[in-house]
Amino acid sequence: MTRPGSSSPFVSDVPAAAAVSAWLDACREAGCPDRLDPVRVPVGDALGRVTAEPVWATRSSPAADLAAMDGIAVRSVETHGASPTTPKLLAPGQYVVVDTGDPAPDGFDAVVMREHVHYEGEAAEIMAAVPPYQHVRSIGEDVSAGELLLPEGHRMRPVDIASAAAAGAIDVVVRRRPRVAVIPTGDEIVAVGSEPEHGEILDTNSMMLVAQAKEAGCEAWATEIEPDDVERIGAAVRAAAAEADLVVVVAGSSAGRDDYTAGVVADLGVLAVHGVAVRPGHPVVLGVVGKTPVIGCPGYPVSAALTFDIFAAPLLAGLEGVAPSRRPSVRARLARKLPSVVGMDDWVRVRLGAVHGEVVASPLPRGAGVLTSLVRADGLLRVPAGVEGHHAGEEVSVELLRALPEVERTIVAIGSHDLVLDLAASALRAADPTLSLVSTNVGSLGGLVAVRDGLCHVAGSHLLHPATGKYTLPYLEEMMPGRDLAVVRLVHREQGLIVPPGNPRGVTGLADLAGGRLSYVNRQRGAGTRMLLDHELSRLGVDPGEVQGYAREEPTHLAVAAAVAAGRADCGLGILAAARAFGLDFVPVAKEPYDLVLDVATLDDPLLAPLWALLAAPGFHDSIGALGGYDTTESGARIR
Amino acid sequence: MTRPGSSSPFVSDVPAAAAVSAWLDACREAGCPDRLDPVRVPVGDALGRVTAEPVWATRSSPAADLAAMDGIAVRSVETHGASPTTPKLLAPGQYVVVDTGDPAPDGFDAVVMREHVHYEGEAAEIMAAVPPYQHVRSIGEDVSAGELLLPEGHRMRPVDIASAAAAGAIDVVVRRRPRVAVIPTGDEIVAVGSEPEHGEILDTNSMMLVAQAKEAGCEAWATEIEPDDVERIGAAVRAAAAEADLVVVVAGSSAGRDDYTAGVVADLGVLAVHGVAVRPGHPVVLGVVGKTPVIGCPGYPVSAALTFDIFAAPLLAGLEGVAPSRRPSVRARLARKLPSVVGMDDWVRVRLGAVHGEVVASPLPRGAGVLTSLVRADGLLRVPAGVEGHHAGEEVSVELLRALPEVERTIVAIGSHDLVLDLAASALRAADPTLSLVSTNVGSLGGLVAVRDGLCHVAGSHLLHPATGKYTLPYLEEMMPGRDLAVVRLVHREQGLIVPPGNPRGVTGLADLAGGRLSYVNRQRGAGTRMLLDHELSRLGVDPGEVQGYAREEPTHLAVAAAVAAGRADCGLGILAAARAFGLDFVPVAKEPYDLVLDVATLDDPLLAPLWALLAAPGFHDSIGALGGYDTTESGARIR
Repeated sequence: MTRPGSSSPFVSDVPAAAAVSAWLDACREAGCPDRLDPVRVPVGDALGRVTAEPVWATRSSPAADLAAMDGIAVRSVETHGASPTTPKLLAPGQYVVVDTGDPAPDGFDAVVMREHVHYEGEAAEIMAAVPPYQHVRSIGEDVSAGELLLPEGHRMRPVDIASAAAAGAIDVVVRRRPRVAVIPTGDEIVAVGSEPEHGEILDTNSMMLVAQAKEAGCEAWATEIEPDDVERIGAAVRAAAAEADLVVVVAGSSAGRDDYTAGVVADLGVLAVHGVAVRPGHPVVLGVVGKTPVIGCPGYPVSAALTFDIFAAPLLAGLEGVAPSRRPSVRARLARKLPSVVGMDDWVRVRLGAVHGEVVASPLPRGAGVLTSLVRADGLLRVPAGVEGHHAGEEVSVELLRALPEVERTIVAIGSHDLVLDLAASALRAADPTLSLVSTNVGSLGGLVAVRDGLCHVAGSHLLHPATGKYTLPYLEEMMPGRDLAVVRLVHREQGLIVPPGNPRGVTGLADLAGGRLSYVNRQRGAGTRMLLDHELSRLGVDPGEVQGYAREEPTHLAVAAAVAAGRADCGLGILAAARAFGLDFVPVAKEPYDLVLDVATLDDPLLAPLWALLAAPGFHDSIGALGGYDTTESGARIR
Repeated sequence: MTRPGSSSPFVSDVPAAAAVSAWLDACREAGCPDRLDPVRVPVGDALGRVTAEPVWATRSSPAADLAAMDGIAVRSVETHGASPTTPKLLAPGQYVVVDTGDPAPDGFDAVVMREHVHYEGEAAEIMAAVPPYQHVRSIGEDVSAGELLLPEGHRMRPVDIASAAAAGAIDVVVRRRPRVAVIPTGDEIVAVGSEPEHGEILDTNSMMLVAQAKEAGCEAWATEIEPDDVERIGAAVRAAAAEADLVVVVAGSSAGRDDYTAGVVADLGVLAVHGVAVRPGHPVVLGVVGKTPVIGCPGYPVSAALTFDIFAAPLLAGLEGVAPSRRPSVRARLARKLPSVVGMDDWVRVRLGAVHGEVVASPLPRGAGVLTSLVRADGLLRVPAGVEGHHAGEEVSVELLRALPEVERTIVAIGSHDLVLDLAASALRAADPTLSLVSTNVGSLGGLVAVRDGLCHVAGSHLLHPATGKYTLPYLEEMMPGRDLAVVRLVHREQGLIVPPGNPRGVTGLADLAGGRLSYVNRQRGAGTRMLLDHELSRLGVDPGEVQGYAREEPTHLAVAAAVAAGRADCGLGILAAARAFGLDFVPVAKEPYDLVLDVATLDDPLLAPLWALLAAPGFHDSIGALGGYDTTESGARIR
């Protein structure tokens, strides 16, 4: 199953640091430039560019002694003897009216502020003697000719270009911008903007990689999408290598049937590394074609993004002669146990929130295909290859993707998933862009555990207590006896069976699940909806073992609806809004309360005040109503 | 001295927060928009733009169940019973070869990794039963149709645009980019690129402000430079207000002879604030013309930069509906006493370094005209209006302008100024872009105090000890008896009198200063060069009181040379390289050693290893030699 030019059918596990140095060695041996050529640009165009030589001042600033105040320029010797009791009159010629920034006239060596001058006709009366150079900015106060203003390897900011211009620079010598070509490959890949057919995948990776390169200060472009054809991919790599300073080939970096990147690189140049001990991102290709470094990056979007971060960004910074930008990090307490594979650097995306004065990190889904985990991440937690993982509550260091002050303005909701929380997040943000509400969906029970452990501000719960038939409240006594907890009603909502449009199997209720007649898609253990299902099945005398698909678990209402929409199941229990989102039909089963659980002390946290105000706003009730299947009569009421 | 349209000849001291809210109130009353209009852009062009409405997923990703591994797709029920002892053969049709990302064929619900498949002819042999959905990525695993992907008010990053595209977005609704017009004013202002004549000032401010606006994501441009003409400035403001979302008028914001901004704004619209209690930046104008906010910002470059930061940036973020970006901050120990005026927020630029494991902040020059203080700053320290200042060693909170990891890669040199340190800084940076050497020039004595107090890694010193005629070493015994200190020779260098080209006054040496025959420019107390002067004058029997200009102090060799070059003094004591930088002549006076003083423990700090390697490199000795006036025979030698 190997194909021409491939060095090995399987990928190796080279540690990331070793992979980088093997790659850079190969680039050096192939004669790749260490730094890009210097170019001369007008100083006004140098924003964001990196100096290729030091910038020395060729002109002092100010270039002459200047008045530092509005007032009159005087000769200090002529003020000697002036005092409030013996004011001195200066005749025109003995003083010159100056404004801030005016050059001190020849021979005039001090300035008296206008507030301290009175005019007697044409004469200026002063009440105090002044020392030489009072309120005078000396020549070179800012910068003297000959001074080093900026070192080589400095990325120019607005103050730098202004300062360089003031110190005499008309243009500056900077590195050429790195050029990055991204080559999307794959028979199944279609351009963004087209409507993908079954089995086709949108080329979002090259859009992302081009954007990452642009953010890093590069010129970047994506080429045409190449099919899985070794000749065409080879030709595309050769052509791109002639144009660019870095070529990124997207997908085909593993060792499967249609994975040509490693072979193409080995054929055209040097394959330095195939496979690094990084997760996600493992099947990475690092090589060089001609004098151009080439990266083959996996098609999983999280892998692609991290491959750029870990391998491309430092190389590009090196070509510009600047240190790779490093994200600040923060110490955080891990919200739950985090296992990790030994032997791989594991890059875990986490959500952060400041709860009760402590930063808490909640790991997000770890699949390489879950790009939304990176969208939603506030930070990256690297579990090094030698570490087996972390236990819950352990303090870890997290690289920040969002600034800490923003993290601190985040209402952390952990628990059951409901669209009303999404709606609230959006409404709060629209009213105050500094405020976020992020909800992590771990089911009602997981939410209550998070409240217990101080890991969230609020937990969304709709957990049926089978013994009492009540929701949520009985669990609080059982799990946190004596704890001072508040419960705020969010909504009542309708749960029901989500079925295909027109209800082709004629589903009438949960009783129809008996005997495996219908295929079902389930929610995970600990989810309120799962609890409702189990309760109802038991009430109806249906054994879960009879239910076809009972073992297939999905984490949200929307994922259940998606499974039904895709024809993978005949029905699944969920909320009306999820059915509507997919244009599906809905067979009502039960109406249930969905509540927010929190510590009583958290009620008065100013961070949450806008949430309570929102829940009381009639306009927001209307928006909830528009989703369908909700009853807002009690929304915002404190029920405990 | 007031002029038409001016509301008051003097500026007030409105606290910054009150100024902002008065300004925003005036904008609201004038009907300025809260948010800019939404526009629809292709998702690939949305990088850096702010969402004007939430982005909901309209398509699930993946849109079908996909193979998550390379291998074969199977029906899980057909694998039941397979084990290492009872392998099972699947005929073609019972399995389909799939690569990662391929859709699972209809009816096939699991994938077996290729590593676990052996082929017997056409049949595939498997050694284990697999559960349903093994190695299958479910439809919607990344995102389900109907899910909220991005809230309103979110600035799009590369992962966001890729994720939005994957979730079905072809274009997204974002805010129009804010438009910022900058109007430079002043009779003395000339465009960058022209050669300024005496009294003319380069228009570096509008270059900087335009760059600041572009960095903030705006479209920005500078108009023509307007002379100090109230009619013309008024016409320019009116025209710009019709085009832009924010107009910034540069200079003329105070209440001097040619300060028209406040009057123009009051005439054309509403003058909300004239003067805020912020230093630098005090004479700021905040108003509104038509429906466009207008800022009048001071001409001092540091004031201009901070005015943008404090007033323009938050307004522009608000127009885009996003939280103003906030810089991370760090706790640092103050290197010296920092007095501050009560009643003004004082924005002090500081250098930062990590010395002996602690972040140390050294205040930079505080003049509003010293733009290099902002260029060199690693952080901003705000001393609030109510605080009188801080004592040395006090812990303060500093807003970071440079990332902390970079600060930690900084060799901190405090002490005497020498160009060789500048040269070393540049060479170290060129070899390793992550490494900085920053030197703060406080004179030799100040450097030794900084070593004593643990505020720097090395101190540059050339301090003559008059009693012994030795340099530096005797002071170490006096100031830090018993301390384990090392001294590394940097260079020997020539000190002499810097005189105009051709030495028109025929200066022969320091004896010529007697009797006030020549005007002199001096260095500050504590500088080694000042010590040398005083020592030599005393040896020659010249009373400092006789020396004309003895009281005029400059902080560096280059500043002394600049003063001589400007004709403000006949001579000044300094190094040959400074004379050369200005094309001046030089009358040798003495050859002196210039040394680096440090704790012995610091010698082995890995951070400093590249510095010691550099001082030993012959190529670097050649570069020093090219400066002129240096002897590198002992460079790099440890002399204590």
